[in-house]
Amino acid sequence: MHRDDGALELLLKRAGASIGIAETRELVAGVAAAPEGFEPEAWIDLVCPGAEAELREHLAALLTEIRADNNEEPANFPARLEALRKQLKRARLTGFIVPHTDEHQGEYVAPCSERLTWLTGFTGSAGTAVVLKDQAAMFVDGRYTVQARVEVDESLYEIRHSIEEPLSDWIAANLPPKGRLGYDPWLHTPAQAAGLRAACGRAGVRLVPIADNPVDAIWTDRLPPPIAPVVPHSEAFAGSTSAEKRTQAAETLLQRRQDAVVLSAPDSIAWLLNIRGGDIPYSPVSLAFALLHANSSVELFVDPRKLTPGLREHLGEKVSVAAMEALGPALDRLGADRKTVRIDPYGTPDWVARRLRTAGAQAVSEPDPCALAKAVKSTVELDGFRAAHRRDGAALSRFLAWLAHQAPNETLTEMSAAGRLEAFRRENENFRGLSFPTISASADHGAVVHYRPCPETDRSLEQGSLYLLDSGGQYLDGTTDVTRTVAIGEPTEEMCARFTRVLKGHITLATTRFPKGTTGPQLDTLARLALWDVGLDYDHGTGHGVGNYLGVHEGPQRISKIASRVALRPGMVVSNEPGYYKTGAYGIRIENLVTVIPMEAPKGAEKEIFGFETLTLAPIDLTLVATELLTEKEVAWLDAYHDTVRKTLTPLVDDDTAAWLSWATRPVGGGDAGKTENTYTHR
Amino acid sequence: MHRDDGALELLLKRAGASIGIAETRELVAGVAAAPEGFEPEAWIDLVCPGAEAELREHLAALLTEIRADNNEEPANFPARLEALRKQLKRARLTGFIVPHTDEHQGEYVAPCSERLTWLTGFTGSAGTAVVLKDQAAMFVDGRYTVQARVEVDESLYEIRHSIEEPLSDWIAANLPPKGRLGYDPWLHTPAQAAGLRAACGRAGVRLVPIADNPVDAIWTDRLPPPIAPVVPHSEAFAGSTSAEKRTQAAETLLQRRQDAVVLSAPDSIAWLLNIRGGDIPYSPVSLAFALLHANSSVELFVDPRKLTPGLREHLGEKVSVAAMEALGPALDRLGADRKTVRIDPYGTPDWVARRLRTAGAQAVSEPDPCALAKAVKSTVELDGFRAAHRRDGAALSRFLAWLAHQAPNETLTEMSAAGRLEAFRRENENFRGLSFPTISASADHGAVVHYRPCPETDRSLEQGSLYLLDSGGQYLDGTTDVTRTVAIGEPTEEMCARFTRVLKGHITLATTRFPKGTTGPQLDTLARLALWDVGLDYDHGTGHGVGNYLGVHEGPQRISKIASRVALRPGMVVSNEPGYYKTGAYGIRIENLVTVIPMEAPKGAEKEIFGFETLTLAPIDLTLVATELLTEKEVAWLDAYHDTVRKTLTPLVDDDTAAWLSWATRPVGGGDAGKTENTYTHR
Repeated sequence: MHRDDGALELLLKRAGASIGIAETRELVAGVAAAPEGFEPEAWIDLVCPGAEAELREHLAALLTEIRADNNEEPANFPARLEALRKQLKRARLTGFIVPHTDEHQGEYVAPCSERLTWLTGFTGSAGTAVVLKDQAAMFVDGRYTVQARVEVDESLYEIRHSIEEPLSDWIAANLPPKGRLGYDPWLHTPAQAAGLRAACGRAGVRLVPIADNPVDAIWTDRLPPPIAPVVPHSEAFAGSTSAEKRTQAAETLLQRRQDAVVLSAPDSIAWLLNIRGGDIPYSPVSLAFALLHANSSVELFVDPRKLTPGLREHLGEKVSVAAMEALGPALDRLGADRKTVRIDPYGTPDWVARRLRTAGAQAVSEPDPCALAKAVKSTVELDGFRAAHRRDGAALSRFLAWLAHQAPNETLTEMSAAGRLEAFRRENENFRGLSFPTISASADHGAVVHYRPCPETDRSLEQGSLYLLDSGGQYLDGTTDVTRTVAIGEPTEEMCARFTRVLKGHITLATTRFPKGTTGPQLDTLARLALWDVGLDYDHGTGHGVGNYLGVHEGPQRISKIASRVALRPGMVVSNEPGYYKTGAYGIRIENLVTVIPMEAPKGAEKEIFGFETLTLAPIDLTLVATELLTEKEVAWLDAYHDTVRKTLTPLVDDDTAAWLSWATRPVGGGDAGKTENTYTHR
Repeated sequence: MHRDDGALELLLKRAGASIGIAETRELVAGVAAAPEGFEPEAWIDLVCPGAEAELREHLAALLTEIRADNNEEPANFPARLEALRKQLKRARLTGFIVPHTDEHQGEYVAPCSERLTWLTGFTGSAGTAVVLKDQAAMFVDGRYTVQARVEVDESLYEIRHSIEEPLSDWIAANLPPKGRLGYDPWLHTPAQAAGLRAACGRAGVRLVPIADNPVDAIWTDRLPPPIAPVVPHSEAFAGSTSAEKRTQAAETLLQRRQDAVVLSAPDSIAWLLNIRGGDIPYSPVSLAFALLHANSSVELFVDPRKLTPGLREHLGEKVSVAAMEALGPALDRLGADRKTVRIDPYGTPDWVARRLRTAGAQAVSEPDPCALAKAVKSTVELDGFRAAHRRDGAALSRFLAWLAHQAPNETLTEMSAAGRLEAFRRENENFRGLSFPTISASADHGAVVHYRPCPETDRSLEQGSLYLLDSGGQYLDGTTDVTRTVAIGEPTEEMCARFTRVLKGHITLATTRFPKGTTGPQLDTLARLALWDVGLDYDHGTGHGVGNYLGVHEGPQRISKIASRVALRPGMVVSNEPGYYKTGAYGIRIENLVTVIPMEAPKGAEKEIFGFETLTLAPIDLTLVATELLTEKEVAWLDAYHDTVRKTLTPLVDDDTAAWLSWATRPVGGGDAGKTENTYTHR
């Protein structure tokens, strides 16, 4: 136990640590603001590499102490909203926009950036609040409308569907002409700022960048920025060296006669430099900015305290490191030299674009050059993905076999089930943590598209219900993301019919062949047709890109209704996840990851033809399949998939799981084999 | 014959005409620059309403004389390009952009606006040339790449695919930094200008608006703007009064707190005011601008000489008329009053936006409020469409029966066949002309997607070839657009296989059910899947909107790869026209017009479900259908469609056509009925 700063100071000195007690306290406060991580004591190297047991114990105790102190005061949302309104009045603002995003536009943000949650209570991964003098509104997409109604006080915030009832309409309808709407230019991209400016322009409202975020001014117990070790990512997993990647990315700058690009996406920086971090949950990255120059050198802006011993050597001579505060002056230098600097209009903070322009640089809007390169996986990376998916499929199958034995069982709950699955995954080689919060959703919770169980909502898996389980792991060699929907007891006919229609969409997409140049949005409808036929649909995209031991959601490709000009290329990894959600009753989703592959050209073909290889390996619950709704081709796909699942996973699992797997992957084609054994008898 | 201005002057005076010989000559020069129209002498009313025979003869002779004088000098494209380059040098421009479009962004333009054709020889409906000091390039989309290579001298202009090798890349690669690229702000929209400016910005090039188009300076024998009579369009066809439409459109301005909108699309103006004109070919509109005010009054800017007697009464008190030249001062007045004025960023000339802003108005970018309202047809309009399609289908069937009797026939050519079809259509009630130039394409001409036969390319329909016929009519009660591909003699197996795949795509789209909110691009892929399966595709959109006795191509909805946020709504009319093109061999396209209709909701449906009703009535050539490639559902659709065609059209045609129709619409389902009579024997 840490009881005494004096004792710790002595230990630090004795160990030859380069920092004293005050700096250590600050560093540990940063560590306490980061997720625990797979190796919870790795951070100790940041204080004193090779610390001995007594010092380690003291440091660990200090972390525990600080963590305990971090417990926030109970949320009083009306008071917080009122305090923010006072700030707005002081700043002569008519309103202020509070997005969920941080400076890096990532999906998961550090506690110090959870302004939207702190202000409103909404915990979803995407959303925006706008606060006016007498009104406030919360904009969330279709995944989160149900969740927002549960979490947010509707007497304080009007909940709106961000696509069907967009922010721009609300601004036009509710802001008075000549009003001043404030935004934090660190938290919005130039494209978002331009969209807001246009919406404001139509309403005669002025959009005003605000240097000091008024939420931060009233959030008194806000944590510091997180500190987690930055470590090298082995070339054996990355597939190519950072020098190769930097040369490739710099080439795109040279082609466009650009001098540099500002990188603000932590996963781009991690990919480019072959490093990983742990500042935020689920995504093994370090919050940082970087400047990639056309000569392929890099200036990395990151809290230097995060660098593990040896990391500077790993980065090499062409990568310099400076603190975050050095970014502004570096942009000023580019301006003074009248450089042409690329910024990603959908990723870089508007603050960066404004600073560059003020300094005299030419800021040109083009995509982050790492985004597409990172999305197209190398052969080494794809082999890693396949290996990670075998291990992950084995863990999920062990869980599903265990579940078949357990359920129904009053003591089995959403949270305990998720915990059990995580325990199976933890046993896997190269496992480093979950890739996103497990969606473990029983019955009507499944209709809350991004439901995440917590003690207040946790419930047991009941007879006659559907159980939706969307989960994934971060492995050193790949990232997984898989959803299975399982019948607990006897499902209804309606459940089976709708599950089967979701499955038809899944299979249609999995088996599609498409010419080179086709974009994801061109394929989105294929996964919906079987539902449309009976007047049903789902209100989310069909597929997202997946990083390689990086963000589980990455661009630039996607399969959704939202337009995209990015063609699908061999080596890209995307999810295939149609669903159906019956509010108040149940949710269904079937998700596999797939990778784009070239297909053999049919005779007479004039186009290069691509298709998908399914990476995810886990049984699809056949008790929910209404075989009579499937075409022959669909049955053939299902049986072939299950054959691969069984053959691949059986050698990796225990005998009980293997026995269950053999039943769970039984063929449904060729007679009514599937119908005779709809219940599994544990042997 | 007109021989003597003196005699004509006397006749004019005697008839009490309000204009003298000089003004008459000017007016007739304008008439000579307009298409002949369905009533070639209607324009005489513009000179002298109720003119008697002698005056009519004199005026007609004057028109003939002026038309004869209008024959252009033979084109010397190198000399024209050289002359333009001299103009650029004088204006200190590095380059200049010559689009096909006119001030109204229409597909068909008046002779005085055919700058691109005059300069380069390219006659397609979309394209852009960029001329630099030593280089020039021509950008055309997939429909026109083959045609551009035929028409344009590639030693003068590099031909580029506008999507795959975009203008912006070419600017970056070929314009020197600090160069000055000129554009005519009348011929580009604000969105186009912004796109060009961004592309120029990336290349360090300045985009410069040029007040006097340098092409006009060197085009010495350019015709005057066209003059054709503006006539009322009966409410019996329009379905609602202009006052109702104006109130509806003004309501959208009030909702957005806007004072006025600038209308620059002639079809929007024609729709709004229930008028029609004849200034340009194929589209019965008058070139004009208009200001619609929030109080639902309209200022119409149009050459007042075009107004037929009584038209001002038809327009009513709330519509004022002024000459085109009055538009600028009217915009200045809006600016002086600090008004908020809507402009369509994809339709209004950049000139208008610039003028408004300079004058002090707030120009806000939002769609033309008439576009969506015009696209959603009323019940009266849809009934008109159905009636027009019955007549049009009867004419096309008479032609196809005649063709079955004639072909193969050495004297039957692409042009003579098209002429014969037009003759059949001319006999129809309410027919007012073709809706676009007939694509009558034999064999490899069919692979030139927008081929239009001319004496130099005309050829006979040969045994063993495919004949692609894409044509349509303008009727007072509706507009048609239909493509049929017909086997002349015995088709090859490959032709049949590919025709059948195009047909499968056509049927898949025709039978799709989709939820409310679905956009055209979400459906585009459905028409391609059967081709993709064998490595084939087509390089054009699948469907376009169709106006009601207005443009045969209209927005805002479309079915294509290009993103759109406009949902398909009941009452919209779109084409369903997948194709396949084998360069140098043949082309296939099957096109019907369809209208969006609400479908009966299936049991348990949660969404409103829409589908399509097919409007076009004409047999699809069964000799090209490989029935074994069709699913049962597809066969059922084909047989049901042919049943409707036969039952609807038989009462409207002669006995010979009826006999052919009975054979041509024979069922292919239920046995091999289709296979036994693959050749029609004329009785």
